[in-house]
Amino acid sequence: MFVAEGHKSVIEFVASGYQVQTIYHTPAAGAKLHNLSKKIKLVEISTGDLQKLSSLTTPQEILAILSIPQQAVPQQEQLRQKFTLVLDGVQDPGNMGTIIRTADWFGVANIICSLDTVDVYNPKVVQATMGSLARVNLHYSNLTDWLPQLKLPVYGALLNGDNIYTTNFGTEGLIVMGNEGNGLRPDVEKLVSKAVTIPRAGGAESLNVAIATALFCSEISRKSLQ
Amino acid sequence: MFVAEGHKSVIEFVASGYQVQTIYHTPAAGAKLHNLSKKIKLVEISTGDLQKLSSLTTPQEILAILSIPQQAVPQQEQLRQKFTLVLDGVQDPGNMGTIIRTADWFGVANIICSLDTVDVYNPKVVQATMGSLARVNLHYSNLTDWLPQLKLPVYGALLNGDNIYTTNFGTEGLIVMGNEGNGLRPDVEKLVSKAVTIPRAGGAESLNVAIATALFCSEISRKSLQ
Repeated sequence: MFVAEGHKSVIEFVASGYQVQTIYHTPAAGAKLHNLSKKIKLVEISTGDLQKLSSLTTPQEILAILSIPQQAVPQQEQLRQKFTLVLDGVQDPGNMGTIIRTADWFGVANIICSLDTVDVYNPKVVQATMGSLARVNLHYSNLTDWLPQLKLPVYGALLNGDNIYTTNFGTEGLIVMGNEGNGLRPDVEKLVSKAVTIPRAGGAESLNVAIATALFCSEISRKSLQ
Repeated sequence: MFVAEGHKSVIEFVASGYQVQTIYHTPAAGAKLHNLSKKIKLVEISTGDLQKLSSLTTPQEILAILSIPQQAVPQQEQLRQKFTLVLDGVQDPGNMGTIIRTADWFGVANIICSLDTVDVYNPKVVQATMGSLARVNLHYSNLTDWLPQLKLPVYGALLNGDNIYTTNFGTEGLIVMGNEGNGLRPDVEKLVSKAVTIPRAGGAESLNVAIATALFCSEISRKSLQ
């Protein structure tokens, strides 16, 4: 199970079909919840108790305990005619949340994470997604087992690859992004069929992983709109 | 003055001409610093004392006290034939650091911040820039006084603007980005000469401000390479 906080975020999870264990709310927030199904368990608690439960600096009035969805990792047929993000060891909860929010903006339906990627149900990640976790499917898998089963182009964010602006991404594929400090692991890099690079004009050695992911999503989106 | 931590970051500030007040280092790290000018004051301290000075969870062996550069806010002639970022009330240190790092990657020389934008010399921002603060000029200004003095296109990240992918940015201009929660203030929005929008394909209501900034930098860079 995991915790989501705030009225908007909780309502988005409910609307996306997430199973609710319990919603805790302050007396003042009860009125915001009366449109919910009667099957959902609501528990009124004091503002002080809600502050104790909250992991936020500024607690919201509503906090929900939700079930983590149990879905099989998507295979070939579910990934055709779309782009899927694959994260190899992303560690920072803020980066992870921003990646999920960005994926949601660009309509990416699935994100597949290596087993050592940060837990997306960590409260910091849930908060940083700004509700987008409710709309993007997240999966964990051993990438070196899962990737070779697929017959889809595997684009990797690497140095010395093709220029992202002139790369033809076609209509389907996997976009593999690496860890903040170390990039892609060698055994994952081996499974990349096309290395792609974001051209640099200035002095920074690298881009933040959420920024690089967004630039891939944007380029794919731009080309699909042409 | 401000604090920078870690060998790489400190060396980059020194190389960029920042005035060093003092560099504190552990006994083990002294050898890394012997190429520095003899004019720079080095103070050897214990690992325990360095940990007490540090604001990092994992302290580095080197910590420098540097002077904040005092430079006049750039005017028309200094901003011709280039793109400049303008930030209206960005609050999150992580976002600010990522924006500076991204600006450095794309070769943006100047960032002008509203007076209420987060302090870029806050240790969290300095750290998040990964050394890029040494290469990008940061300025604070009252935007509603400064912007009207310039005769340059002012592009604003707004809803219902022109599609960013087909916008012709030309060869110079200002890119104005707003606060995380509230976007641009109405009195700054009035000074925007062209509203530009990142097309959305999915469900997220908005993009993180560092992500949106990166997509503007990338589009301008892409078009300059064509």
